[in-house]
Amino acid sequence: MGSRLKDKPAILKLGGSVITRKDEPMTPNLQVIGRLAEEISRAHASSIVIVHGGGSYGHPIAKTYGITGGFRDQAQLVGFSRTHEAMVSLNKIVVGNLLDQVLPAFGMAPSSFTVTNEGRIQTFRVEPLTRAIRTGLIPVLYGDAVLDADQGFAILSGDQIAAFLAVKLNAVRLIMGVDVDGLYDSDPKTNPSAQLISHLTLEELQELRGKIGESQSPDVTGGMLGKVSELMTPVSRGIQAVIVNALKPSNIYKALKGEEVVGTKIEA
Amino acid sequence: MGSRLKDKPAILKLGGSVITRKDEPMTPNLQVIGRLAEEISRAHASSIVIVHGGGSYGHPIAKTYGITGGFRDQAQLVGFSRTHEAMVSLNKIVVGNLLDQVLPAFGMAPSSFTVTNEGRIQTFRVEPLTRAIRTGLIPVLYGDAVLDADQGFAILSGDQIAAFLAVKLNAVRLIMGVDVDGLYDSDPKTNPSAQLISHLTLEELQELRGKIGESQSPDVTGGMLGKVSELMTPVSRGIQAVIVNALKPSNIYKALKGEEVVGTKIEA
Repeated sequence: MGSRLKDKPAILKLGGSVITRKDEPMTPNLQVIGRLAEEISRAHASSIVIVHGGGSYGHPIAKTYGITGGFRDQAQLVGFSRTHEAMVSLNKIVVGNLLDQVLPAFGMAPSSFTVTNEGRIQTFRVEPLTRAIRTGLIPVLYGDAVLDADQGFAILSGDQIAAFLAVKLNAVRLIMGVDVDGLYDSDPKTNPSAQLISHLTLEELQELRGKIGESQSPDVTGGMLGKVSELMTPVSRGIQAVIVNALKPSNIYKALKGEEVVGTKIEA
Repeated sequence: MGSRLKDKPAILKLGGSVITRKDEPMTPNLQVIGRLAEEISRAHASSIVIVHGGGSYGHPIAKTYGITGGFRDQAQLVGFSRTHEAMVSLNKIVVGNLLDQVLPAFGMAPSSFTVTNEGRIQTFRVEPLTRAIRTGLIPVLYGDAVLDADQGFAILSGDQIAAFLAVKLNAVRLIMGVDVDGLYDSDPKTNPSAQLISHLTLEELQELRGKIGESQSPDVTGGMLGKVSELMTPVSRGIQAVIVNALKPSNIYKALKGEEVVGTKIEA
């Protein structure tokens, strides 16, 4: 009920390291946010849901108060709220930039309608969101501090939300905008001869994930293991996922248009 | 499911004309908000939900774009979002002041989990909210621009939310903090000999409401007809409602403590 949509939406995830300056607390990358808003406007997607990460907003506060590990004492509660409020502040900047492009962006707070269990989505009330899409709005969600049935609270990543919505809304495409060109066969930040993987099947994705899991060594994909894991379910349901560098102009525009773009395309 | 609570919560509604300067767009009354946060802290309520109104934040923008009347054209969508964003800004100020008192206030966005039908609550996913209360958080909601099953979107008042939650959570008390001393037998703003009604039964409340409805004349209670109407259901369910002047120091503190306070008490 409530999750059928006339137009299959595109799900666009914008990484925290794309829209914030990761090394400066609570600092948005306004130049990038403005450019991305313009690209989204230019792409004229008929139906789109945007999910963004936390970068230098949510993460430092969540870490200070140990929110990821769940509830241990009352003193964390203020930290839970401050983590959420930091994300609301970042969401307001993203939404504001989209509104400036006359895009009907609509900020939605995951913690207001989602409950996790051990950090995985358990309850996700999709009705206001699907109704928003049908009304012509562009929901803009974000990784958030949420209530958790098992551990009191947890951090729900934007990646998990994006992958969940891709399946739930039967998305036409799941676009993961990150700060690198895609998945590599080794970590491009330490190995200069690392090769970009431009295409992966579900089987290859599973292998890659197994290899990373087995190795016990640092994540060879350059910290992309979590992202890769989240993509398994949508890809297995036939949804095309594409990892692109959102810091490079026009990539998000092209990905939204379904055009060829440098990155990693993953398909069943 | 999910709405049983160990401690019956108090529902505290703070009017928009209390926490904002009504005649100055987007201007909070920081002195009052700070004092109220201190009173709430001092009252040590074991369980409380706060709902605030829009005042000079939500109302002017909603009016400009005709949000109350529902969807007519695409151009309103940006106004729908801007109305919501204005309320998020006000909510951040209220939550911030409560956090400064080390109260674990937790901002929740009604439009993220509520859908109305012709302006009345149709869907209201209460689970994250009840889980927040049980975890020790103080949910802080607000009147909001929401999706509407019949008219596309609508304005959902803080009064309606507060009354709804009082019933849904079987509240110990519903406190309506306003900018006058309570209900009067005529409008105190125009009639200097108007008498404060200190106590009303449900029957008297129904009569008063009927009288106001019949008269076709300006609301004799001084614009309190909407509020009085919202109180009918919770009062009929045995929940005590009290209308108090939140601009006068210690009134909210006393009301939260269940102490006698100048105002209008309404009981079945």
